[in-house]
Amino acid sequence: MKKILITGFNGFVSGHFINYLEKNNIKSEIFGIDINKSEMDYSIFENVITSFVQLDLLERDSLENIIYNFQPNYILHLASYSSVGFSWKNPSLSFRNNMNIFLNLMEVVREVNPSCRILSVGSSEEYGNVTKDKVPLKEEYSLEPVSPYAVARVSQEQLSKVYCDGYGLDVVMTRSFNHIGPGQKDIFVISSFAKQLVEIKKGIKKERKLVTGDISVVRDFLDVRDVVDAYYKLFAHGVKGEVYNICSGNGISLREVIDIMCGILDIQIDLETDSNLIRPNDNKIIIGTNEKLKAATGWVQKIKLKKSLEDIISYWDKKI
Amino acid sequence: MKKILITGFNGFVSGHFINYLEKNNIKSEIFGIDINKSEMDYSIFENVITSFVQLDLLERDSLENIIYNFQPNYILHLASYSSVGFSWKNPSLSFRNNMNIFLNLMEVVREVNPSCRILSVGSSEEYGNVTKDKVPLKEEYSLEPVSPYAVARVSQEQLSKVYCDGYGLDVVMTRSFNHIGPGQKDIFVISSFAKQLVEIKKGIKKERKLVTGDISVVRDFLDVRDVVDAYYKLFAHGVKGEVYNICSGNGISLREVIDIMCGILDIQIDLETDSNLIRPNDNKIIIGTNEKLKAATGWVQKIKLKKSLEDIISYWDKKI
Repeated sequence: MKKILITGFNGFVSGHFINYLEKNNIKSEIFGIDINKSEMDYSIFENVITSFVQLDLLERDSLENIIYNFQPNYILHLASYSSVGFSWKNPSLSFRNNMNIFLNLMEVVREVNPSCRILSVGSSEEYGNVTKDKVPLKEEYSLEPVSPYAVARVSQEQLSKVYCDGYGLDVVMTRSFNHIGPGQKDIFVISSFAKQLVEIKKGIKKERKLVTGDISVVRDFLDVRDVVDAYYKLFAHGVKGEVYNICSGNGISLREVIDIMCGILDIQIDLETDSNLIRPNDNKIIIGTNEKLKAATGWVQKIKLKKSLEDIISYWDKKI
Repeated sequence: MKKILITGFNGFVSGHFINYLEKNNIKSEIFGIDINKSEMDYSIFENVITSFVQLDLLERDSLENIIYNFQPNYILHLASYSSVGFSWKNPSLSFRNNMNIFLNLMEVVREVNPSCRILSVGSSEEYGNVTKDKVPLKEEYSLEPVSPYAVARVSQEQLSKVYCDGYGLDVVMTRSFNHIGPGQKDIFVISSFAKQLVEIKKGIKKERKLVTGDISVVRDFLDVRDVVDAYYKLFAHGVKGEVYNICSGNGISLREVIDIMCGILDIQIDLETDSNLIRPNDNKIIIGTNEKLKAATGWVQKIKLKKSLEDIISYWDKKI
């Protein structure tokens, strides 16, 4: 029986992670933390026992009590202000909050539970603007973050390494590329597109048009169910102090993703670019290699892009 | 007449920077900020007018008023929690304070004075543990910071770049290697050694012994008077968004520095290592190249190491 603390408990990834434990018969005791009240109910699950507390991770003393009492084996640190757009509007607040919650967590672990393993979740945004000849991105490449959000992620990763090497903590770091999957909020691009396309298909949205930012950008999308599989395998087999790309290894433009989804729904639409939706200094192409993850953990991708998109569309079809 | 705002006004570097302006007949109006009361008196200077306010840079509103009213051409951002040792004892506090004062400054400039040039002072510590074959360190090398302090410095540099490229601010960044020179506090290693050796020479310190940390480490020392010359030249000729090493290009071990100072004072002493003074995960060798700085600004080193050490010893000789 593993004891696992999850921050950002109400989020998309956390839900899929707990579902993964249940489905794979991994007996676990989960303690969830989220800044908002939880509406999650896992009481019918057979392999997973969950408890929850609503807490702002900036409140260090409360966090210390929880970790001292729960004594987790693993900590899955998912809580973050993860919007790149928000970080451009409020660079200081975004950076500070992300770093402060991370530092609170590390300091508490350093004090009360130094033997547990922490998964510090980072982002492909850490690589920054890269030229075509540098993809697929390898973990050893230099990091040139171009947004306030991305700088915070780099700082978190570098501090993770300092806590490992300087204080002996057991941290494994990820650079997670774009996740997609059923249940993702429609503030994220693919989920937003899918929702609107379903609305068009159903005639709820009358105008057969998608207003977008720059859809020529190429991203490496991985289904969230493959992401949580990687996270669990990194708890079990990742090497302390090492960083791993979590990605599919394949790149696709947003325009092509829209095309595939229109194909699945059998609809035709118009596209319109809104310059307000174009981010300053956005990365043109992000594709990673997952060789290091595979070699360390035996992980393989199980869900291909087409299947993810079908499931996302099916999710919105049921929901609206 | 240039208007220059200096944070960390009471420090070692600030004093030498103002002295540099006076000596080189650079007409300037200085506004100094420091967290502590100032005991500096520049009233007899002919080329430099100074005013001062005591302020914690965490107080953003006051900083905003100052910058709005003063409308500087240049901002020399020297204020920081610059002790690597403190950052190991209080990683969270050290990191947060350094980042919060920097972010306050950048946000205020973004709001009220976006055309001024900011010199963001970083550190050679950003490079991290490097193997001998990588020295001298070039600006394009990847950064692998090994202390909480160094991570904050990397974050500051990366955020500077984001503020340049994403918001159009005019920031020039440095990676400043170890400064030495007369007037430096004895919490810094060379100044501390020099003071103790002068005390031994004068018979004030009876035991002819120096207790040290690891003195096999090799560092690139540059006289503070050459450092401030570089800073001024970067205000005038540095390229926005670029980072420059500020260094001599020569490495020397602390042991050799002690030998030279003993030679200047004509004394012989014993050395003793105290394991408490050895830092976790310290860099073994740090030497930089200053080619980029030279090419951009025409800067050349004027004060050699021996002369610096003589002046430092002379400073302590007068003082104690």
